[in-house]
Amino acid sequence: MKFDYLKDLLGNRFLDEKIDKLQYAYDATQKMYMPDCVVLPKNTEEVSKIVKFANENKIPVVARGCASGFSGGALNIDGGIALSMELMNNIIEIDLDNLIATVEPGVVNYDLQVKLKPFGLFFPPDPSSWKFSSIGGNIAENAGGPKAVKYGVVKDWVLGLEVVLADGSIINIGSKNVKDVAGYNLTQLFVGSEGTLGIITKALLKLHPIAQGSQTLQATFYDMSLAAKTVSDIIKNKIIPSSLEFVDHQAILTVEDALKANLPTDADAILIIEVEGSKFQIKEDVEKIVQICTENGAKVKIAHSIEEEESIWLARRSISPTLKRIADGKLNEDIVVPRSKIAEMIKKTQEIAKKYNVLIVNFGHAGDGNIHTNIMYNTKDKDEEKRAYQAMDEVFDECLKLGGSISGEHGIGITKQDYLERQVGSRTIQLYKQIKYAFDPNNILNPHKMKL
Amino acid sequence: MKFDYLKDLLGNRFLDEKIDKLQYAYDATQKMYMPDCVVLPKNTEEVSKIVKFANENKIPVVARGCASGFSGGALNIDGGIALSMELMNNIIEIDLDNLIATVEPGVVNYDLQVKLKPFGLFFPPDPSSWKFSSIGGNIAENAGGPKAVKYGVVKDWVLGLEVVLADGSIINIGSKNVKDVAGYNLTQLFVGSEGTLGIITKALLKLHPIAQGSQTLQATFYDMSLAAKTVSDIIKNKIIPSSLEFVDHQAILTVEDALKANLPTDADAILIIEVEGSKFQIKEDVEKIVQICTENGAKVKIAHSIEEEESIWLARRSISPTLKRIADGKLNEDIVVPRSKIAEMIKKTQEIAKKYNVLIVNFGHAGDGNIHTNIMYNTKDKDEEKRAYQAMDEVFDECLKLGGSISGEHGIGITKQDYLERQVGSRTIQLYKQIKYAFDPNNILNPHKMKL
Ligand SMILES: Cc1cc2nc3c(=O)[nH]c(=O)nc-3n(C[C@H](O)[C@H](O)[C@H](O)COP(=O)(O)OP(=O)(O)OC[C@H]3O[C@@H](n4cnc5c(N)ncnc54)[C@H](O)[C@@H]3O)c2cc1C
Ligand SMILES: Cc1cc2nc3c(=O)[nH]c(=O)nc-3n(C[C@H](O)[C@H](O)[C@H](O)COP(=O)(O)OP(=O)(O)OC[C@H]3O[C@@H](n4cnc5c(N)ncnc54)[C@H](O)[C@@H]3O)c2cc1C
Repeated sequence: MKFDYLKDLLGNRFLDEKIDKLQYAYDATQKMYMPDCVVLPKNTEEVSKIVKFANENKIPVVARGCASGFSGGALNIDGGIALSMELMNNIIEIDLDNLIATVEPGVVNYDLQVKLKPFGLFFPPDPSSWKFSSIGGNIAENAGGPKAVKYGVVKDWVLGLEVVLADGSIINIGSKNVKDVAGYNLTQLFVGSEGTLGIITKALLKLHPIAQGSQTLQATFYDMSLAAKTVSDIIKNKIIPSSLEFVDHQAILTVEDALKANLPTDADAILIIEVEGSKFQIKEDVEKIVQICTENGAKVKIAHSIEEEESIWLARRSISPTLKRIADGKLNEDIVVPRSKIAEMIKKTQEIAKKYNVLIVNFGHAGDGNIHTNIMYNTKDKDEEKRAYQAMDEVFDECLKLGGSISGEHGIGITKQDYLERQVGSRTIQLYKQIKYAFDPNNILNPHKMKL
Repeated sequence: MKFDYLKDLLGNRFLDEKIDKLQYAYDATQKMYMPDCVVLPKNTEEVSKIVKFANENKIPVVARGCASGFSGGALNIDGGIALSMELMNNIIEIDLDNLIATVEPGVVNYDLQVKLKPFGLFFPPDPSSWKFSSIGGNIAENAGGPKAVKYGVVKDWVLGLEVVLADGSIINIGSKNVKDVAGYNLTQLFVGSEGTLGIITKALLKLHPIAQGSQTLQATFYDMSLAAKTVSDIIKNKIIPSSLEFVDHQAILTVEDALKANLPTDADAILIIEVEGSKFQIKEDVEKIVQICTENGAKVKIAHSIEEEESIWLARRSISPTLKRIADGKLNEDIVVPRSKIAEMIKKTQEIAKKYNVLIVNFGHAGDGNIHTNIMYNTKDKDEEKRAYQAMDEVFDECLKLGGSISGEHGIGITKQDYLERQVGSRTIQLYKQIKYAFDPNNILNPHKMKL
C-alpha cells in the first residue's frame, strides 16, 4: 500500500483512520482539509525518513505545530501527510552561560517560559497564543506579541536551526554564536517560511533576563489621532515601553457590551502601556508617559496592584472572544503600517466600513503599527459576506498605499496568497519561487503555500 | 569596443586608464587585482543599466563601498567592472516619527552618525572602520562593532532594501514596518551576502536613541579564565554592557612596547567595560560590575572624565596599528565562539602559537565571543609564513570544535573560502550555490566569492 513504509517505521504513531485524521484537518482559520495520513515522529531521523519517502513518492508533507495558525499554514490543502511535531517537545538544554535554549519544535511557547522562569529568564516572543502554539510554529510564522515593541519578534531571537530538507538531508544552520557571518543567512530564510522550505527539528533560541519590575497604564483618548500621536511622542522621547497596545472605539463598545466593565464607551481609543525595568527606571518612564498622554488630552489610570493591572488588560484581552457576539463571520487581518500612519489607517478602515456597510473592529500593537482589523459579517448573509471581502480588499490597498504590509505576524498561508504580489511585486514573487525550487524541487513541502 | 556602452552612459564617470583603475584594485587585505574598468553610477537607474549590460555580456561586476573589507570582498579577482558606490552617498530621509533613516549605499557610517546626533539618535552598528566604511559595505558584510554586545550587528538594524538584481531589474524588499511577515525574508538574505546576490542601492535603517550617559571601566586580570568567567558573570547578572572588550597578554605587551602607556605587562588580560543608560542605571550597573570583577580577582579602574575614558580605550584601539611593529605579515582572523568558551579558545591559540613557533595576539569583543586572532609572521621568512598558515588552519579547527564560527564580522570573501565548508557542511554549501544560481544564473555578481 501507499503508506506501508510509514506504518512500518512508526507503528501506532502512524494514523490513517478517519476519526484520527479529522483531528489534524483544521487550524484556527476553521477551514478543513483532510490529510491522507498523520505521522508523529519522535526524532530528527524519523522526520528525515518520512520526508525522504514523501519526496521519492511526490507526496505533500505539511508540518504542524499546535494548529493555532490564523493563515491556514498547517492545512493539508492537497492532502498528503500531516507531519505533527507534537511528540518532539523536549527542552534539550538551557545554557545559562550563553543565555541560549536548545529546544525541539513541538515545545509549547508557554512551557518553555515556565521552565525559564526560575532562572530569571524568558524567551521574549509572546504571541497571545503562547499557551497553545509551538516554538516550531512560532518560528515558521515569525510570530510576535505585545512585547514585540521592545524586544522584537521571533526572527530576533533565533540563532540557529536544525532542518530536514525536502530530500531528507539534515542540515545545521546558524550557531550559538551571537555574531556569525559565515555564508548566507539561511536561518532567517527559514523564519517565517511556513514549512515550505524544510522541517525545523531543533532550534537555538536566545533568552533574555526578566526585568526587575513593570507597571501598566491605561490612557483614554477622545480623538484617535491624538492617541496615535501619543504613540509616536512616547518613542520620540526615547522611551521604549514593553507593551504599547490599542483598542479602537468599536472594540471598546464590543467589550463593554459583553462585559459591562465600565469602559469609557464615548472614548475614541484606549492605549494600554506597560513599562519595564528597575524601580527607578519605571518611575522615570511612567512620569514621562503620563505627561505625554495628558498633553495629548488623555485621561490616565495607573495600575498599583496586580488586580488593577488585570482590569486594565481585560479590555484588550477580551476583544477576540467577544467579537463572536457581533457576528459569526470575521475576516481577521493583521495589517501593519509605519507607526506614524496608524491614525490615518484607522480612519481609512472607518471610511471603508461605512462604504461597504460592514462593521470593522480594530485593536492591536500600536507600538509596532500592527493593527488587527476584524471585518465582521453574518455568514448566512451572502451579500454581507461579499461586501466584507470587498472591504478587506480595500483595506489591503490603503495599507499598501501607506507603505504598510498585509501581514505583521499571522503570515500569508492560504488566506492572503492572492494579495502578496500586490505588496512585493512580480519580480520578487519570481525570486520566492526560485528559492522554493532550490530547496524543494518536487514541491512536496506545504506545496499549496508557495506554488511553483 | 567592449565598454563603449558604459562610456556613453557615464561619460567621465567611466574610468579605464591604468592609473585610475589602480585606485580601485585593492582593499584592506592589501591584495591587488586590476578591474577592466571602473564605473561611478549616480543613481539606481544607472546601476540597473550597468548590471544589465554586464549580464548580457557576461562580464563580472564587483560592488565596492570604501574598500575597507578584511576578506577581499571588493576585489575584482576575475577582472571585469569595479562598481563603486561612492557617488551614491545621499542621506535621503531621517524619519523621526518612525526612527528610520533611508540612505544610499555609499554613505559613510560616520557621516550618517554625525547627521543623526543633533536628533539624539544613532545607527547602532559601529565597526571600528566607521570613518572609512560605507553603509552598503556594512550591510554586505553584516558588520558589527564594540556596541554589538548590547545592540547587535547590522542585520538587526536593516528593515528594507532596494536592490538591483543580476538581470538589471530593481526590487524593493522589506519595508518601514518593524513587523512584516509577507513572503520570504529576502532582506536578511542580502545582509552579509558580499555583493554576490544583487547590488544594494538604497537601505532603510532602524535608528536608536542615544543613551543619556555612559561610563567606562577597566578591569585587569592575572588569569585569562577569570576574565572570561567575569564576562559570563556580568551577563548572568542581567547586565548587558554597551561594550565588553578584551585584550590578551600578548596584546598588552605589544601596545606597551609601542606606547609606554604604563599598562600592566604582568597581566593576563584586560577587560574594557562600558555601560550606558540613565544616571541611576549606570550607578547600579557599575557597582555590580565592580563587585563581580573584584570577586574574580581583578583590579578595577573607573573612568571619571573623558580623558580617563580615552586612556582606558587607548590600549584597545592601539593594538591594530602597533601590530606592524612585531612583524610585517599578519593573518587577521575574527573567529567567534560561544561566550562561555572564550578562555578555552584563547588557551588553544596559545598552545597553537607554541606548537608552530609563531606569535599570536588576541583581542576583541568578549561580550560576543568574537576574538580577533592575529597570527604574526615575517613575510620574508617563507618557513614562518607557512607555519602561520598551519597555525591558522588549526585555530579554525579548534574554534569549530568549540561550536564557533570562522567569521564573526569580517566575512568570508576570498580569504576564508577554503574553510567555509568545514563549518557549514557540503549540503549547505550546495544550498548556497543554488540560491546564488536563482539570483544570478550567469554568475556575474562578484563571481569569485560564491562559485557555482
Ligand atoms: C487566539 C489566537 C491568538 C493569536 N495571537 C497571536 C499573536 O499575538 N501573535 C502572533 O504572531 N500570532 C498569533 N496567533 C497565530 C498563531 O498562534 C501563530 O502563528 C503561531 O506561531 C502558530 O504556531 P502553531 O504551533 O500553532 O503552528 P501551526 O498553526 O501548527 O503551523 C503554522 C505554520 O508553521 C508551520 N510549521 C509548524 N511547525 C513547523 C516545523 N517544525 N517546521 C516547519 N514548519 C512548521 C506549518 O506548516 C504552518 O505553515 C494567534 C492565534 C490564535 C488562535
Ligand atoms: C582598520 C579596520 C577596522 C575594521 N573594523 C571592523 C569592525 O570593527 N567590525 C567589522 O564588522 N568590520 C570591520 N572592518 C572591516 C570592514 O570595514 C567592514 O567589513 C565594512 O563593512 C566594509 O565596508 P566597505 O564600505 O569598506 O566595503 P568594501 O570593502 O568596499 O566591500 C565589502 C563587500 O561589500 C560588497 N558591497 C559593497 N557595497 C555594496 C553594495 N552597495 N551592494 C552590494 N554589495 C556591496 C562588496 O562587493 C564586498 O563584497 C575593519 C576594517 C579595517 C580596515
